[in-house]
Amino acid sequence: MPVDEQLCAWPAQRMAQAVRRREVSAVELVSAHLDRIEQVNPAVNAVVSLVPEQALAQAREADARAARGDALGPLHGLPVAIKDLMDTAGIRTTYGSPIYADHVPRHDALIVQRMREAGAIVVGKTNTPEFGAGSHTFNPVFGPTRNPYALDRSAGGSSGGAAAALAARLLPLADGSDLGGSIRNPASFCNVVGLRPSAGRVGSTRPGDAWDPASVLGPMARSCADVALLLSVIAGPDDRAPLSLPEDGAALAVIAPYSFRGARVALSRTVDGLPFEPAVARVMDQVATRLAGLGAEVVEVEPDLSGADEAFQTLRSLEFVASYATEVRAHPALVKQSVRDDVAWGMALTAEQIARAQALRAEVFRRTQALVARFDLLIAPTSQLPPFPVEWEYPRRIAGVPMDRYYTWQRSCTRLTTTCLPVLALPAGFTDEGLPVGVQFVGRHRGEQRLLAQGAAWEEAVSDIMARQPNVVPA
Amino acid sequence: MPVDEQLCAWPAQRMAQAVRRREVSAVELVSAHLDRIEQVNPAVNAVVSLVPEQALAQAREADARAARGDALGPLHGLPVAIKDLMDTAGIRTTYGSPIYADHVPRHDALIVQRMREAGAIVVGKTNTPEFGAGSHTFNPVFGPTRNPYALDRSAGGSSGGAAAALAARLLPLADGSDLGGSIRNPASFCNVVGLRPSAGRVGSTRPGDAWDPASVLGPMARSCADVALLLSVIAGPDDRAPLSLPEDGAALAVIAPYSFRGARVALSRTVDGLPFEPAVARVMDQVATRLAGLGAEVVEVEPDLSGADEAFQTLRSLEFVASYATEVRAHPALVKQSVRDDVAWGMALTAEQIARAQALRAEVFRRTQALVARFDLLIAPTSQLPPFPVEWEYPRRIAGVPMDRYYTWQRSCTRLTTTCLPVLALPAGFTDEGLPVGVQFVGRHRGEQRLLAQGAAWEEAVSDIMARQPNVVPA
Repeated sequence: MPVDEQLCAWPAQRMAQAVRRREVSAVELVSAHLDRIEQVNPAVNAVVSLVPEQALAQAREADARAARGDALGPLHGLPVAIKDLMDTAGIRTTYGSPIYADHVPRHDALIVQRMREAGAIVVGKTNTPEFGAGSHTFNPVFGPTRNPYALDRSAGGSSGGAAAALAARLLPLADGSDLGGSIRNPASFCNVVGLRPSAGRVGSTRPGDAWDPASVLGPMARSCADVALLLSVIAGPDDRAPLSLPEDGAALAVIAPYSFRGARVALSRTVDGLPFEPAVARVMDQVATRLAGLGAEVVEVEPDLSGADEAFQTLRSLEFVASYATEVRAHPALVKQSVRDDVAWGMALTAEQIARAQALRAEVFRRTQALVARFDLLIAPTSQLPPFPVEWEYPRRIAGVPMDRYYTWQRSCTRLTTTCLPVLALPAGFTDEGLPVGVQFVGRHRGEQRLLAQGAAWEEAVSDIMARQPNVVPA
Repeated sequence: MPVDEQLCAWPAQRMAQAVRRREVSAVELVSAHLDRIEQVNPAVNAVVSLVPEQALAQAREADARAARGDALGPLHGLPVAIKDLMDTAGIRTTYGSPIYADHVPRHDALIVQRMREAGAIVVGKTNTPEFGAGSHTFNPVFGPTRNPYALDRSAGGSSGGAAAALAARLLPLADGSDLGGSIRNPASFCNVVGLRPSAGRVGSTRPGDAWDPASVLGPMARSCADVALLLSVIAGPDDRAPLSLPEDGAALAVIAPYSFRGARVALSRTVDGLPFEPAVARVMDQVATRLAGLGAEVVEVEPDLSGADEAFQTLRSLEFVASYATEVRAHPALVKQSVRDDVAWGMALTAEQIARAQALRAEVFRRTQALVARFDLLIAPTSQLPPFPVEWEYPRRIAGVPMDRYYTWQRSCTRLTTTCLPVLALPAGFTDEGLPVGVQFVGRHRGEQRLLAQGAAWEEAVSDIMARQPNVVPA
């Protein structure tokens, strides 16, 4: 059976509606995606640890439930793959680490539970860097994920498998996680949409500091409407997640109309003084022109993000101590150098440095929240360079400026992490070489709903960009 | 003019209603309290840095506004004094430290702003230990606060001035703050009510880690209804407080009816194995009997709080580094030994210890939240001993067990801090010597409203205890 390419390119919302109306069966939908994965995935290596038989069995059950007239969840029958950092019961979960190459968790992570309860069918896992470290997806277990728009380029990371799978129409929806741009950077590199929500919007029950606002989970898709659909399922309070916001996720499913006419948009071109490759800057010119064309007043503003780099580096390294010190001690030879470096930087931190970083983060939050409140929106380029060669470990220079740590090139994202505000990563344009370039929309604290409305209005203005599919030749 | 003792003993709600109905003027109310403070405060030393003229001027303005028919806030015309750890614009704020003996802040803290906006009239400040450290209120600026029920005993701390002022009918409402029992312990020692809310319930914009759930602000009063009144004013979101909960505070003003009939109450007698003085244990027997008399099923349970002491000590010391390292460096001779010790313990912490403490705290939260969810309520004694001699720095033994750090004797409170659940401190009874003993009601995460309903039902059952006023002889 030839792959139904058209079906795989549908919006997730349309797929969900069609299954609910029994115009398309879950089996058809899952089969079409499994076929496309089989044909296209070898070229991109986005989906790993496939479970096609399990998925098809669940699709048959899903169709039986629909036939019986059971109540169906909002993702009923939709195929998804879960980022390989998140535990999936009975499905291999490697965290991109050879230590866990054969690890099969017994329990689903909360986000996976919620997606399954909403009717989603897990077909496998999406690739991620080793322990999610760095914004380029490669690891010794599965190798690199390639950019569907240019197979010799990075898909970004750490949700690189998710972004590439969405772009290549291997999946309609995917979960991501974001500490230093791990949802936003791959969204930018792969011309898809990703939301880094406010802390507590999407609950997590992972071990470690349950009050940490920096490491968050979020939805990724090919449109804001589909991001809202997945967000509505994974958001909501959980008794084990103390930061989790009380509002039920379902309220987030609907995107309100929004017009940029008369809106005041703050445009940060450099995220407070960072270097950017000229190709990115050129796309930002187009962004400003398009926003002005929509009737927005675009005001060039640089937010004061002083202290953000220090706060991010310190608290990131503390987080690596919390999460990976044990692994580094037990299996030093099986952990990549950059993770060992991060743990070592963390171990060397003093209490005073940690306290100072926490205080700096609060200041960055308050300053940026006050700035955003003065405008309707703050926007900035997502990545400081277009997708780079897949063979690189990380970019060592941007616009001639050397990058000291392996994640220094991600500062356009990490500085916004430290604001702790929600950020929506959206397609913005393409370079002359045809590489995607993205833009970040920064919202008010917990302002995801408004941000998605603004994102949907933006999508209409760049429908030509959104429609530009990668030309992935089946292997 | 003789002090209108009866007026000062009214519930705050009744005072507010009387002022709103213009049955009592703000000037009368403020004057009566100022008179009582003048006569009684020298014996207890609860209220410090009085501003009687400013307060009377504001009371006259408040009466003028009422006469004009302006909209009046829920605390219109009520005299309050602010804990001396919280900044008050134009009113001396010492933090109990000689370094700040003459410090006059330019701005009100958020909680003070909110109380003033609700119509409260600030008459002065309530005493606190130096930098709020330790649960016994004494400092080199103002000396010790004495327990109104026994002037040779401690009023507890760090909100000791607040609790003693409420008990002695010097004020109808008071703000407190609580890291290691600073609302609960003085409430217990002074036979008043204090709520340690969930993190984010009462917003704060102080410098430092804005995501810290351990250090919270909360209301204190002589009844749950009055605690709810003050909570409704100081709760609510603020753009500068990222943890602040979205719900408006006003919704918390009304206490729903509650009956213990058929309720399952988990009673922890030792807060997971702590020593308690027999006098406290005897009152807990009476608590169990009274609850059973109300129709509750009392189940003796010890929550598993392992890890709580380590997490509390580590994160408290980190907090002291954040808040007081600068003072200790600049003025070592002007900072008391216990604060210097805490900063020194904090400076010696490793990143790994800090990460471990954060992870332990999350585990304690999840375990206790799950336990509380299995019952209607978890209760425990507030303090491990009755009010101790005012000359002590801190209790060095409890039931024969030596206490190592200056705050080790507060573990019945600090362990519950680490659960990060809301805790309501309520009167429970008196020792044979006539010293107050209190009980902690532990609620579900963000469950303040239910907790206050349960507290109000409890108050009815111990109305004899609640009514027992201290016999403070005017000096």
